[in-house]
Amino acid sequence: MKKIAGGVCAAQGFKANGVHCGIRKNKTKRDLSLIVSDVRAAAACVYTQNLVKGAPILVTKKHVEDGYAQAIVCNSGNANTCNADGVEIAEGMCALVEKHTGIPAGDVVVASTGVIGQPLSLDPIAAGMDPLVKGLGENSDFAAQGIMTTDTVEKQIAYTFTLGGKECRIGAIGKGVGMINPNMATMLVFVTTDAAISPEMLQKALSMDVQDSFNMVSVDGDTSTNDMVCVLANGLAGNECVAAPGKDFMTFRKALHKVTSDLCRKIAKDGEGATKLLECKVSGAKSKKTARIVAKSVIKSSLFKAAMFGADANWGRVLCAIGYSGADLDVSKIGVAFKSRAGELIVCRGGSGVAFSEEEAKKILSEDVIDVLIDLGDGNGRATAWGCDLTYDYVKINGDYRT
Amino acid sequence: MKKIAGGVCAAQGFKANGVHCGIRKNKTKRDLSLIVSDVRAAAACVYTQNLVKGAPILVTKKHVEDGYAQAIVCNSGNANTCNADGVEIAEGMCALVEKHTGIPAGDVVVASTGVIGQPLSLDPIAAGMDPLVKGLGENSDFAAQGIMTTDTVEKQIAYTFTLGGKECRIGAIGKGVGMINPNMATMLVFVTTDAAISPEMLQKALSMDVQDSFNMVSVDGDTSTNDMVCVLANGLAGNECVAAPGKDFMTFRKALHKVTSDLCRKIAKDGEGATKLLECKVSGAKSKKTARIVAKSVIKSSLFKAAMFGADANWGRVLCAIGYSGADLDVSKIGVAFKSRAGELIVCRGGSGVAFSEEEAKKILSEDVIDVLIDLGDGNGRATAWGCDLTYDYVKINGDYRT
Repeated sequence: MKKIAGGVCAAQGFKANGVHCGIRKNKTKRDLSLIVSDVRAAAACVYTQNLVKGAPILVTKKHVEDGYAQAIVCNSGNANTCNADGVEIAEGMCALVEKHTGIPAGDVVVASTGVIGQPLSLDPIAAGMDPLVKGLGENSDFAAQGIMTTDTVEKQIAYTFTLGGKECRIGAIGKGVGMINPNMATMLVFVTTDAAISPEMLQKALSMDVQDSFNMVSVDGDTSTNDMVCVLANGLAGNECVAAPGKDFMTFRKALHKVTSDLCRKIAKDGEGATKLLECKVSGAKSKKTARIVAKSVIKSSLFKAAMFGADANWGRVLCAIGYSGADLDVSKIGVAFKSRAGELIVCRGGSGVAFSEEEAKKILSEDVIDVLIDLGDGNGRATAWGCDLTYDYVKINGDYRT
Repeated sequence: MKKIAGGVCAAQGFKANGVHCGIRKNKTKRDLSLIVSDVRAAAACVYTQNLVKGAPILVTKKHVEDGYAQAIVCNSGNANTCNADGVEIAEGMCALVEKHTGIPAGDVVVASTGVIGQPLSLDPIAAGMDPLVKGLGENSDFAAQGIMTTDTVEKQIAYTFTLGGKECRIGAIGKGVGMINPNMATMLVFVTTDAAISPEMLQKALSMDVQDSFNMVSVDGDTSTNDMVCVLANGLAGNECVAAPGKDFMTFRKALHKVTSDLCRKIAKDGEGATKLLECKVSGAKSKKTARIVAKSVIKSSLFKAAMFGADANWGRVLCAIGYSGADLDVSKIGVAFKSRAGELIVCRGGSGVAFSEEEAKKILSEDVIDVLIDLGDGNGRATAWGCDLTYDYVKINGDYRT
């Protein structure tokens, strides 16, 4: 697999754009994005597990029920959630896409991110649709910007890979936890590929993948009402359609995971107020499930996250978070090490502390990418979770008055 | 019930003290506390659910197995956890109490709070035991100070109540989440009463109570390795021993809950870096269990806590935390209001936002005790959870280098 440019436009037959239409007050911020495929594409989605769901999620679910879609429209600045007319507005966004592109509204995926509980007007979206559609092209960066909220950098990635002897491309844009007028954290990821794969296998690949990718990312433990990951596969690479498990399916899954895990890192690193990317790698667990539970418990611990902000080798907080994770394990077998570009340091072995140099620990933890390595010494289960440190700026961003 | 002075010494036959013995470097900080009863007392304890347990917990479990104890010894500055010789040291602390008071080591409850993974020497404890025991008296405040870590105020409370026609007293000291050399958050509560109650009924009362008291407090969602709540009931009030469920048992439970819920408020309000006490009161739930799940989910949400710090009426974050709580509920029936000394404001009804004055909201949320009232509109289940806002100081306290 080779990294390439182009984001969601890297795959053949995909165009994108992003404009400022007026939902956000700041005119320098794009707030409406569109991704279209030249042809109808197999579509797969996963959504937030929150019982409170944004209206766009309800509409998208209906539109991809048949396994196909051809466009993705997404606004930032307003989550269109907890509004009485939410579904009507989300349907209206799809109808506007149909009016300007000819793609049937029923083939449009719709998403929103931003403030919840504030009515979303269709007016700015209607006004922005013309320049949005006219500007469709190799503009993955504009599309990536149009879905940002408090994200500080746009997030896109693309790779080439070979499937059934054909060169395929897969790319994505994403946004992490952030807010507009401080409100709701949302994670949105849109993936495009020209690989040919059936809707069933695409959904299967995505559903399996998120367990080891986006479900393993935590910035603050809050699950948004609007989270959505959507993959469109338009088949223009000309490979034999992946319609069953097997070698090609595994190749596709690998390519998908390369894209999703890259985005996980980007999203965690750009977490609200974050100064460090934290990767918690658990090995030696009784099962994969145990490994996931432990990795997520550690990456979510506020005490651990604050310690990492302070470059403090406070391994007791790691042990503590392992202990309350609810996972089935033997405390007396746990080993913990911290690792970064500056080196690796074992701090706990057999559940007890080992003497270490505080100076070396500080050097290792002062880097901006920190691995926490946990060996449960009890099997072959492995998992990785991504997160970030807890900083003054997280509190500042989330404590400010809405304005 | 009437509030009285005296803390853990309010009940007849209890003496207490706290001294600086040298575990903590700061000589102005007491770090060793002792509570003794003139006679053997029925004893009940609950402990942390964390798989990683402090050595003192293992020793205390053994010592109260027979349902009785006569003294509680507790140090701050070192949690005596994840140390190879931890059990030996904890047993040593009990033996020192026996040596100086004559109370058998097997009747001593032992607890520790502070840094984990650092060896605890018996030397300062042995040296401090003499002045500690000589100074035993009406010194509940010294005992309360001796168990503090980053707590900013000592926490004690006492009440009188009537049981079987006799006047009884119940009092307690407690400490909340805090750290010594930033490390481990621990909650410790020691309750003393002169009511006569059997060990079985005392344990039953405590186990039932914590579900609606200490298990409903969250400062940062991290469950410590050393949490312990212990009640000693020495029977000196002379009431007929409460040995079975019934009216007297209910009276005792009510008195116990008055003490524990008061301490919950004190502990939450003094949460690390906190500027506000948050009380989340859920009503209209399908069951008590549902109400508890919802109340805890909201009180734990970092986004919600940061909004309260900023006096931001961001009810979307309340809905969001209700939605991901995992509780069985109907989103379209949820109502939310904020309440404080400055007034009450409905912000959400039937799962959707209602127009409100931002100015009034700001006034209400600028107080230092905020109630979040959630009506699930779906039954009679009720629960209250206590927490605090997420502030710059939380990050500062927990992000500093250990020194």
